[in-house]
Amino acid sequence: MAPPESPKVYPAMTRAPRHLTGNKEGIKEFLDKFDVFLFDCDGVLWSGDHLFPGTVETLEMLRSNGMRAPAGEMLRPRDLYPPGKRVVFVTNNSTKSRADYKKKLEKLGIPSTTACTPGQADKRKQEEIFSSSYSASIYISRILKLPENKRKVFVIGETGIEQELQSENIPFLGGTDPAYRREVRPEDYKLIAAGDPSLLDPEVGVVLVGLDFHLNYLKLALAYHYVKRGAIFLATNIDSTLPNSGTLFPGAGSMSAPLIMMLGQEPVSLGKPNQAMMDAIEGKFKFNRSRTCMVGDRVNTDIRFGLEGKLGGTLGVLTGVSSEEDFVAGPVRPSVYLHKLSDLLEAK
Amino acid sequence: MAPPESPKVYPAMTRAPRHLTGNKEGIKEFLDKFDVFLFDCDGVLWSGDHLFPGTVETLEMLRSNGMRAPAGEMLRPRDLYPPGKRVVFVTNNSTKSRADYKKKLEKLGIPSTTACTPGQADKRKQEEIFSSSYSASIYISRILKLPENKRKVFVIGETGIEQELQSENIPFLGGTDPAYRREVRPEDYKLIAAGDPSLLDPEVGVVLVGLDFHLNYLKLALAYHYVKRGAIFLATNIDSTLPNSGTLFPGAGSMSAPLIMMLGQEPVSLGKPNQAMMDAIEGKFKFNRSRTCMVGDRVNTDIRFGLEGKLGGTLGVLTGVSSEEDFVAGPVRPSVYLHKLSDLLEAK
Repeated sequence: MAPPESPKVYPAMTRAPRHLTGNKEGIKEFLDKFDVFLFDCDGVLWSGDHLFPGTVETLEMLRSNGMRAPAGEMLRPRDLYPPGKRVVFVTNNSTKSRADYKKKLEKLGIPSTTACTPGQADKRKQEEIFSSSYSASIYISRILKLPENKRKVFVIGETGIEQELQSENIPFLGGTDPAYRREVRPEDYKLIAAGDPSLLDPEVGVVLVGLDFHLNYLKLALAYHYVKRGAIFLATNIDSTLPNSGTLFPGAGSMSAPLIMMLGQEPVSLGKPNQAMMDAIEGKFKFNRSRTCMVGDRVNTDIRFGLEGKLGGTLGVLTGVSSEEDFVAGPVRPSVYLHKLSDLLEAK
Repeated sequence: MAPPESPKVYPAMTRAPRHLTGNKEGIKEFLDKFDVFLFDCDGVLWSGDHLFPGTVETLEMLRSNGMRAPAGEMLRPRDLYPPGKRVVFVTNNSTKSRADYKKKLEKLGIPSTTACTPGQADKRKQEEIFSSSYSASIYISRILKLPENKRKVFVIGETGIEQELQSENIPFLGGTDPAYRREVRPEDYKLIAAGDPSLLDPEVGVVLVGLDFHLNYLKLALAYHYVKRGAIFLATNIDSTLPNSGTLFPGAGSMSAPLIMMLGQEPVSLGKPNQAMMDAIEGKFKFNRSRTCMVGDRVNTDIRFGLEGKLGGTLGVLTGVSSEEDFVAGPVRPSVYLHKLSDLLEAK
């Protein structure tokens, strides 16, 4: 089995990316090209629960388009948008819903920008967030034409997926239901083989796999049999790893891996770098792709997402998964890169 | 990620295999070519706990080399070996030890053959069994030269692996230890990232992955970090599926799949079709490969194992995973095939 992230080679990207850290004029010139920044979060803005220093200031600088508040003061909302740049948080993390992400942003002190009232602020901030579980829910409810009797989704994943499915009124089973957190029993084999409805709901038309900290043998067996019986195989994303505490842990792609191996079939992935996600973001935010930049730490998800989406630019940062060698000599290269996101503050 | 079992193409095997069911003379001629039969078990002799009709009679016929006892009598031991054919059970099932397999054979009524005393019968029967967890234990204890302080094995798997490691005096952790059957906790991430010995034993030099009905996120995270820290990545076998109740369930290969995806690295597999297993069987039984036949239901493990081992013949049966189309038109083809093993009884 080849590693799944063996990237496409982009023949047009033969030029090494520009390294902008320490290059004030280069950064200014780069920023002037864009009105919209799509941000990957983990590995770019923070790692796990650790906010990188300068993240808030950098986002504020972009949103204010270079204006900075006098020391000790905040910029007033009307200063910020327009003419500031639009910021969208694009995350493959399927364990959190957009509402969870909103809470996470607040907890980390990442401020709301364009609000005039608290209610508007809440709405705006949630709308700035685009997650792979939201993307998958949109895909299931609005793109897939499921037959009336095949509308249920069997979920391998955590509450983030469930919340987004609920927000689109999609019925689901599996997920965090404790009934699925058990050992496989001898009688399960026969029941599954017979397609017994006590274990295999005949109305399941989709298997959706995201990161599941409670993955087990039973869930894998059920997901396999649902797909063998005709369910559509979807993944929120195919990142094999999840950054945490400065290292890597199993990611959503690792939950799909056993099924891919058993089925000999890849899931349709609704996260980066899949362009279904870009189309959905564009549908919502109506941005001009040539004036939009994707910012990320992973060449094979973030940077590839921006390149395949034909965005005006891609910005790699070295605070996550990919290395400087990946950026400079790999087959998928950003147009520019920085040691860390807050190096953008050098422009001011 | 490509399915892992995409088989090698064998250019020499352009001739379709002979279908011997119903061909008495063909079967006789085929049997005469061999002194030793290596048997895959599940899907050939039985499925799950269901012994196929005629299995016992077929094995007895082979062992007696065609002699059959008069009705109501058993053949006496001295009738059987020599000149009967030698039978070896070669299984990739890592959840059972050889001792477990011996019990399974007894429970299913598969008789011992060459015994003169009950004690000898026990020994003989266990020696007729060759499992992937035994093969892996032999490989670790006798082939790998592990440094003094890296002798421990982190096991993803069930008791069969543990018993075979014990039989070779190999220290291990993980496996069926209930301490590993728990959720990942927030503090685990930091401890694992720091290489804390409470979670990552510094003496682990090997990660051995087999079928584990209690696979979970914690075990995958630990296995990943052990390999990243230098442990050798082994698998008892890479069968993606496990037959049971007439259908398929996740196999040992599916336990390795997340790690393969995360690491971008394949394990060394010690089960069929890996030739390390053939070498070990040959080392033990001293057979003549040209007079040996591999019998199995899977082209990509059993038949490939026989072909790559340059055995005199391979016999496919249709009571397991591979289909007639696989045997006749696939890239890996047995030399002959039968609908079921007991069709061999037609020769008499």
